[in-house]
Amino acid sequence: MTFEHDTLSVGMVGYAFMGAAHSQAWRNAPRYFDLPLRPRMSAVAGRDQAKVTAAAARLGWESTETSWQALIARDDIDLIDVCTPGDTHAEIAIAALEAGKHVLCEKPLANTVEEAEAMVAAAEKARANGVRSMVGFTYRRVPAIGLARQLVAAGRIGTIHHVRAQYLQDWIVDPEAPLSWRLDKAKAGSGALGDIGAHIVDLTQYITGDTIATVTGRLETFVKERPLPAESHTGLSGTADATGRGEVTVDDAAAFLAHFRGGALGVFEATRFANGRKNAIRIEINGSRGSLAFDFEDMNVLHFFDGDDDSATAGFRRILATEPDHPYVAAWWPPGHLLGYEHGFTHQVVDLVTDIAKGLDPAPSFADGLQVQRVLAAVEASSLSSAWQDIPA
Amino acid sequence: MTFEHDTLSVGMVGYAFMGAAHSQAWRNAPRYFDLPLRPRMSAVAGRDQAKVTAAAARLGWESTETSWQALIARDDIDLIDVCTPGDTHAEIAIAALEAGKHVLCEKPLANTVEEAEAMVAAAEKARANGVRSMVGFTYRRVPAIGLARQLVAAGRIGTIHHVRAQYLQDWIVDPEAPLSWRLDKAKAGSGALGDIGAHIVDLTQYITGDTIATVTGRLETFVKERPLPAESHTGLSGTADATGRGEVTVDDAAAFLAHFRGGALGVFEATRFANGRKNAIRIEINGSRGSLAFDFEDMNVLHFFDGDDDSATAGFRRILATEPDHPYVAAWWPPGHLLGYEHGFTHQVVDLVTDIAKGLDPAPSFADGLQVQRVLAAVEASSLSSAWQDIPA
Amino acid sequence: MTFEHDTLSVGMVGYAFMGAAHSQAWRNAPRYFDLPLRPRMSAVAGRDQAKVTAAAARLGWESTETSWQALIARDDIDLIDVCTPGDTHAEIAIAALEAGKHVLCEKPLANTVEEAEAMVAAAEKARANGVRSMVGFTYRRVPAIGLARQLVAAGRIGTIHHVRAQYLQDWIVDPEAPLSWRLDKAKAGSGALGDIGAHIVDLTQYITGDTIATVTGRLETFVKERPLPAESHTGLSGTADATGRGEVTVDDAAAFLAHFRGGALGVFEATRFANGRKNAIRIEINGSRGSLAFDFEDMNVLHFFDGDDDSATAGFRRILATEPDHPYVAAWWPPGHLLGYEHGFTHQVVDLVTDIAKGLDPAPSFADGLQVQRVLAAVEASSLSSAWQDIPA
Amino acid sequence: MTFEHDTLSVGMVGYAFMGAAHSQAWRNAPRYFDLPLRPRMSAVAGRDQAKVTAAAARLGWESTETSWQALIARDDIDLIDVCTPGDTHAEIAIAALEAGKHVLCEKPLANTVEEAEAMVAAAEKARANGVRSMVGFTYRRVPAIGLARQLVAAGRIGTIHHVRAQYLQDWIVDPEAPLSWRLDKAKAGSGALGDIGAHIVDLTQYITGDTIATVTGRLETFVKERPLPAESHTGLSGTADATGRGEVTVDDAAAFLAHFRGGALGVFEATRFANGRKNAIRIEINGSRGSLAFDFEDMNVLHFFDGDDDSATAGFRRILATEPDHPYVAAWWPPGHLLGYEHGFTHQVVDLVTDIAKGLDPAPSFADGLQVQRVLAAVEASSLSSAWQDIPA
Repeated sequence: MTFEHDTLSVGMVGYAFMGAAHSQAWRNAPRYFDLPLRPRMSAVAGRDQAKVTAAAARLGWESTETSWQALIARDDIDLIDVCTPGDTHAEIAIAALEAGKHVLCEKPLANTVEEAEAMVAAAEKARANGVRSMVGFTYRRVPAIGLARQLVAAGRIGTIHHVRAQYLQDWIVDPEAPLSWRLDKAKAGSGALGDIGAHIVDLTQYITGDTIATVTGRLETFVKERPLPAESHTGLSGTADATGRGEVTVDDAAAFLAHFRGGALGVFEATRFANGRKNAIRIEINGSRGSLAFDFEDMNVLHFFDGDDDSATAGFRRILATEPDHPYVAAWWPPGHLLGYEHGFTHQVVDLVTDIAKGLDPAPSFADGLQVQRVLAAVEASSLSSAWQDIPA
Repeated sequence: MTFEHDTLSVGMVGYAFMGAAHSQAWRNAPRYFDLPLRPRMSAVAGRDQAKVTAAAARLGWESTETSWQALIARDDIDLIDVCTPGDTHAEIAIAALEAGKHVLCEKPLANTVEEAEAMVAAAEKARANGVRSMVGFTYRRVPAIGLARQLVAAGRIGTIHHVRAQYLQDWIVDPEAPLSWRLDKAKAGSGALGDIGAHIVDLTQYITGDTIATVTGRLETFVKERPLPAESHTGLSGTADATGRGEVTVDDAAAFLAHFRGGALGVFEATRFANGRKNAIRIEINGSRGSLAFDFEDMNVLHFFDGDDDSATAGFRRILATEPDHPYVAAWWPPGHLLGYEHGFTHQVVDLVTDIAKGLDPAPSFADGLQVQRVLAAVEASSLSSAWQDIPA
Repeated sequence: MTFEHDTLSVGMVGYAFMGAAHSQAWRNAPRYFDLPLRPRMSAVAGRDQAKVTAAAARLGWESTETSWQALIARDDIDLIDVCTPGDTHAEIAIAALEAGKHVLCEKPLANTVEEAEAMVAAAEKARANGVRSMVGFTYRRVPAIGLARQLVAAGRIGTIHHVRAQYLQDWIVDPEAPLSWRLDKAKAGSGALGDIGAHIVDLTQYITGDTIATVTGRLETFVKERPLPAESHTGLSGTADATGRGEVTVDDAAAFLAHFRGGALGVFEATRFANGRKNAIRIEINGSRGSLAFDFEDMNVLHFFDGDDDSATAGFRRILATEPDHPYVAAWWPPGHLLGYEHGFTHQVVDLVTDIAKGLDPAPSFADGLQVQRVLAAVEASSLSSAWQDIPA
Repeated sequence: MTFEHDTLSVGMVGYAFMGAAHSQAWRNAPRYFDLPLRPRMSAVAGRDQAKVTAAAARLGWESTETSWQALIARDDIDLIDVCTPGDTHAEIAIAALEAGKHVLCEKPLANTVEEAEAMVAAAEKARANGVRSMVGFTYRRVPAIGLARQLVAAGRIGTIHHVRAQYLQDWIVDPEAPLSWRLDKAKAGSGALGDIGAHIVDLTQYITGDTIATVTGRLETFVKERPLPAESHTGLSGTADATGRGEVTVDDAAAFLAHFRGGALGVFEATRFANGRKNAIRIEINGSRGSLAFDFEDMNVLHFFDGDDDSATAGFRRILATEPDHPYVAAWWPPGHLLGYEHGFTHQVVDLVTDIAKGLDPAPSFADGLQVQRVLAAVEASSLSSAWQDIPA
């Protein structure tokens, strides 16, 4: 693969929520960061020509394709950005890697461990030819999260005893909220566990630099039937009942206990039923030397307790992670000028493009994505078996 | 039993931390509340005559005894207030009940389920003679907690989906913190689980009006040996090793998942290793109609999300539970003048004395205490078996 | 004056809100602190025999008097505790001092500067005979406030640039709230300014160790007429109009700018119209080396920004001022067990009794109270003159 | 003026902090919002050809000019976006308006009232020809601020009694921070007052829908001399002293009291010396029916106290202003996905472009900018005169 001059030509598959977030990242990253390669938003692919054309115009892509196969077949594309639902990740990503394209794949890596394993194998093979791959756990790139990892790595937290993580949303707490594809196991693979639980598994492992060894958990579906969405009563074949309702086939919520290999005790919870919590990714780390606390609903802030402070003046510090010496921040605004949700995607592009240019393997790798998948699979298995399940090292 | 005029003559066993808290309650309750019986702080019992005499003078008790047996034997005592470590609760409480004395017993009710069952039997028997008993889960009497229960009972939270509770302390995060009686299973029965986990089991069941049906959990002891306390190298016989260190025989932390009978999914955590958290009892309830959040480190506040508010103005309300229409508050200060830790004990005396005068059974009863004990025992069993354990209804 | 053995015999005048708060302090202080003299709650005075008798029974006073003159005349009384409205402070306190009684006088010291000056003169004269006097700015004795002062004194805040203080309440935001004595200038002397503004003047001067040199401000009365209280249409003679409404003769709110002698710029606000704020005493200090922030609605917490922390981990520390090394806390409960409103009164008794026993002058002195009064008078004058007003050094 | 098809061709003057913020807005607004005209980033002007060329490449402008005059002279430019320091605003904006270009001018509108008056006159004249002008108070376009205004307008706050606003930064609290152009009165016009105080004047007037009638205030310069910046010892001619230090000629901080025409009492403070506060725009509104509180350091949140809630459940609601029914939010991400600092600029472009296309006058107008300027001038005058100063209606 050659780079046209020093650009990186990107083709994106899918243009919904994630497609919009990725587009802004490709668009804005080179405006703030000195990138070694200039991303070119070459093409976006989608099945419906009218819709994909409109999306390209709106999101700023130069051309369109109506199949991902056609996109991958194009010689002028260096990187495939996979923004489709999870059930298509494996097929697209593997084909792209085999075609010698770098791949950025949205999380979760795949809907099953088996698919994820095949993707890792493809990534390993492609890597030998200098082809890079990355899975899109963008929350790692929130500056406050990066700072958290730095503090752990620097020993400021000490030996970690407790990891406490919740991802709380409430968007289907109303039992009359319609059945979307995200509530269909065939499409989404998993419910709250895979969609949002995946993030807190990745984030806690990233921050601690440790991995989960064993889990026991429980998946819950509080509302078992929901109205079918007005526009597509036939979209979820086989699930519609006489009254226009369909079965929810994924979990509404998941909770699990975990042991990390390093000895920490973990408590995790992911739910779409936490009334009043909109996107609360809450992470707390308690160690022998200090503690950390983070909430995505106040995402520019990291709370840090430094156990080395004298006891009369010790207290959780509310660090506004907008200083130039916080990760990624120097490229943005002066202190106290907050970043938002999409900046994590922009930072993801920065890191990915930099690694590709330097011939480095980006993180999180497909193998990292597979490991998260294995944790989620173990949680699901434990919910069925009511026993602890180990995750292979 | 007769009341001397309209007083209630109290004899207290033990005068350490809990003894001080109970003494202030007996002293102050009648100064703020119209009690139907006037508590008389008649006698305090302790083994060391000099120490108990000093304690009586400081805490305001009229006389002393050097054995609890002598205290119970006194005709002028109407109520025995048990403030000793958990391993003595059963013996003292049962003897007192058999002697026709009302009993207020500190939590945990006992160190084992068997002891607690014997206490419940004794309480049931005594009850037939008008003798009352109560276990001291005082946090129920924090006004913000009382308000939480009222909101659930009034249906403002709807069907409860999630119960999330943590009791976080950090007082032994330093591995060189000495081995106290609270770290000795023989004396304390349990570690974080029994000492502080008991509170969040009781509180969540109290607020929700529901009970825990089944649990799976894990107990952890992060620091397995600690220096023996300077003054009593022989106090914990058999545990001292050659270097003056002793074994920690209780849990430093416990975490467990739970199903409530009403369908809620519970996630619980109790630890003495949450660096920077001093006494953080954090409870969150998410229901179909609203949510609640509480943290004892800001104990006068209840956060309430009312799902009935229109979406543009909905948000967690920070209710300062110091209004006259909040539980117990009318007896105290004007709005915005905070109550503290000990007020829960004062309210406990108010409720207990009122119930005794009215011939009602106080809550939480010994049976309630036993039920909490059974949950804790099930958690401990699940930690050993790595399987879910049911709690008898 | 002689002490009966080692007791300090107290006589209190008034038994309403402040009388209750003071009573609990006299009752509880010796139960937690080792006091060099034992307070004896000898007598309480009030004009109505039935009411004062009931109050004595409830609050725990041994005897009653129906005039403050009779109380002062008693040989067995060592200290007069003045808990009446401000218009009577001067007369009672001066008489008590002249009778050789120590005096604790509630704030504000007096309703006018002239009265306060007379009280200071009386206090100075009595002092020569070993008679002590103190004005009751109890908020100084909140541990978090004491810690704030310590941090300033230790240089941790550096040169102070900004003092920002608000005392926000909302108890008369409803225009139909009745006309109480606190809204009558003849009785109360002042409205929000004198009642609650006095506290933030005292607190900021106490924390900074500095005094206010000059001010300009504005007093506002948003609701100029209110319904007369049902029980006493004649109680506020001359103010009732035909429709049973009376004139509000004090300020609802006051705001002022100030220069401290040390160079800090001060911004102050006191109001009874801050809807939703119940007792929010909010103080912020910004200095060259650090900053402090406090809110009485979360009174156990002091926020401290340490400018010496490295910029990546600097942030306001939420210090829970319940550690044994925080002021007064060692006598109370373990870390994380909160204190409440009344503890400040208890600490006031501790300090006052200790100073009396040691022959020291307690703080804040009557002279300190006068200085606060002068600041308030200057604010009031500036509101009329629309010009800055100096406060004599 | 004609639009090339349906584009709006933009020429920007200046490319520093504000230029970067405006560029991203022009770039991103059409990607999220359906704009009636498509902005074209035609040209950017700056004096140094090399630097402006680099800026154009980085920020995404099609061409460059080395003088603003040349930019204005171009026929293909429809709108001039003025992002230079305040001392050049009047000249550029007036020339642009006279050339028939729409103008977006950064705040403060000008460095003096006189300049601002001339700009308003030019804007009024141009308006007759359909030429639009707007001043860039972007914080109005933060969704939480928009919601605040809506709640006031809907009567949810009632009659406003208190307006409390602070703009707190700390970037020059270090006395060794160098002398930048922002500390030079000739260039910047004003210090904290004009730079950041302008925002809270505009915001509070915008939210309340009311204007300030009279003020008294004080400006402070805590550090009167600072080291000259290394690169430009001659940049601030005439201010360098022998030791390489220069005089600070603007205010470090400003505080003032205000009366709003509608009767509210205002308290304002703007400072660059609030150690630990990075960009804390804090606004509180207290009214007869409710209250609002906002802090830009948590800019997605509006706190709302609804006085109509029953007293047992009333409390400040923490509204996360990320719902689709909050201003501007529907175009962005799902609930709970936060927006950042630059989104206000994007919304500004949306509103400006929409108004131009519809032939409406955008707000805030130059007249609004002048009115803010008059308030600032009155504060400055009051600081000199020590008297209240009126602002013409």
